[in-house]
Amino acid sequence: MKKLINDVDSVLVESLEGFAAAHADIVSLDEACRFVRRRVLKPGKVALISGGGSGHEPLHAGFVGSGMLDAACPGQVFTSPTPDQMLAAAQAVDTGAGVLFIVKNYSGDMMNFQMAAEMVTCDNATVLVNDDVAVEDSTYTTGRRGVAGTLIVEKIVGAAAERGGGLAALKALGNSVNNATASMGVALTSCTVPAAGVPTFQIGADEMEMGVGIHGEPGRRRVKIASADEIAAELAGAVLKDLSLQRGSEVILLVNGFGGTPLLELYVMVNAVHKVLAGAGIRAVRHLTGSYVTSLEMAGCSVTAYAADPATLALWDAPVHTPTLRWRS
Amino acid sequence: MKKLINDVDSVLVESLEGFAAAHADIVSLDEACRFVRRRVLKPGKVALISGGGSGHEPLHAGFVGSGMLDAACPGQVFTSPTPDQMLAAAQAVDTGAGVLFIVKNYSGDMMNFQMAAEMVTCDNATVLVNDDVAVEDSTYTTGRRGVAGTLIVEKIVGAAAERGGGLAALKALGNSVNNATASMGVALTSCTVPAAGVPTFQIGADEMEMGVGIHGEPGRRRVKIASADEIAAELAGAVLKDLSLQRGSEVILLVNGFGGTPLLELYVMVNAVHKVLAGAGIRAVRHLTGSYVTSLEMAGCSVTAYAADPATLALWDAPVHTPTLRWRS
Repeated sequence: MKKLINDVDSVLVESLEGFAAAHADIVSLDEACRFVRRRVLKPGKVALISGGGSGHEPLHAGFVGSGMLDAACPGQVFTSPTPDQMLAAAQAVDTGAGVLFIVKNYSGDMMNFQMAAEMVTCDNATVLVNDDVAVEDSTYTTGRRGVAGTLIVEKIVGAAAERGGGLAALKALGNSVNNATASMGVALTSCTVPAAGVPTFQIGADEMEMGVGIHGEPGRRRVKIASADEIAAELAGAVLKDLSLQRGSEVILLVNGFGGTPLLELYVMVNAVHKVLAGAGIRAVRHLTGSYVTSLEMAGCSVTAYAADPATLALWDAPVHTPTLRWRS
Repeated sequence: MKKLINDVDSVLVESLEGFAAAHADIVSLDEACRFVRRRVLKPGKVALISGGGSGHEPLHAGFVGSGMLDAACPGQVFTSPTPDQMLAAAQAVDTGAGVLFIVKNYSGDMMNFQMAAEMVTCDNATVLVNDDVAVEDSTYTTGRRGVAGTLIVEKIVGAAAERGGGLAALKALGNSVNNATASMGVALTSCTVPAAGVPTFQIGADEMEMGVGIHGEPGRRRVKIASADEIAAELAGAVLKDLSLQRGSEVILLVNGFGGTPLLELYVMVNAVHKVLAGAGIRAVRHLTGSYVTSLEMAGCSVTAYAADPATLALWDAPVHTPTLRWRS
């Protein structure tokens, strides 16, 4: 195992400390490293909290800041955070308007966020993200997995929260964005969890895992390596089929690297996905291209489309100031 | 070779077309794919042009936009762009105030940019970047290599150009920033150039290349894999030694991934570099952490420090709006 680390047991804490120091203008780290929070809260705003296993950076801590999340709870690599982390985060960032939990659909995350929701004393609600169209049920889930589409939910709901949206409305918006978001990914190589020390799965030099999950869990099938155009046809095809989009529809397109894929290749994939969209009469009106929801150093990518409408496009475009996403209208 | 591509001969063009489509609000691509340019020019501003071999994305095209570059000329992977690309770019983006070429010190780039400088009819000057302290002379250079520090030169000179700086002043500023910038990197794995189809170099499962170049070219020596703290001590130590910084100095710290290293590890490195800086009484007042100057999918990182003063810190903080870097003061 080749990694830039000191010790497998201290990877997460050291990484969080480096992260918090590098972005001290935006975030602060709870002393016990249980959560990352927005340094300056906005009183009266519904607080957005997400979290999940580490190893998917920049998700979620990279999205803490104005216009997106108020706190993120990191578990160990590919391991759910605990209810006490979520409870501590909720107590720290609730300013009276309540807390919205944004949770990727994994059994461990679901269970722990549910326990936290029962323990917190403030108003709270939960949005469950399950955008991965590759498989129904999987290694770690009942039902579809939550993957890269999570960042689209976090961005749009985050903007609506910043504008003063109430808890119930934000939950409804989150559910609506999730329902209009679909993703599917492919892996060319495995990743290696530091504590395991060996690759999560074995894959041949001429093979790829179609429909892979963001922990390297199995997808639809193991296939021979294909061209970017063929991969785009399968990934974007599955995504468009799930969304049942009519010709003339507009989408936000996220081509997401899993951590070990060069940007050079991700833009080849953008170009390839555009051909699929053009064939379906669909236009990508916003793009995000890069490694945003990763699986450590896994090579591969996912394609996510969100069926945008003018109101949520405006929320996507709204100012955001986080360690990773940063723009103004 | 496992890559998300269609054909090794079309990788660059397809990637550029995906890039230009994804960022059509900021950039446009010359029809013959010879350069990427800022869509909207600022009349009377000195135009900044950089370029070099592809495979280092997001460098340089990701830094084209307001507050940074006016054009970027991409060569084939790890191959210099040609003088006619640079000439065409200069003709396209010069608005009368002249052109400043920002060139990484590689023999091919140097020669071709020099030929372009002799061919262009407008006023022009060149800033040479040679921030890599690992080795004097190397596979592709006479003198030190230009690596990740290039983005610091491009950002600071870009901001000064946006404020109306003249050609001679910008050249002087670029030289001064380059002289106060130092970098050194380490590779854990090789990359594979698409047209070659095999790894650029062989490296043992327990080895790393200390002082590696951004094309996978040899550095100082091949060593056994070490801890993040040990790596940080060597990289940051060499950088600080080169800059001869006094205690109390302030730096901009760039911890740069080479393309195959997870952000989780890059922040472990940030944390490790902070210990080295603290020991030297030096403070990192700005941070940039991520894969910005890459070597395709090579695993590893580089550490860059720029000895900042208040005037250039203000230029670093000045608004920038490019596909990759985007912030406002």
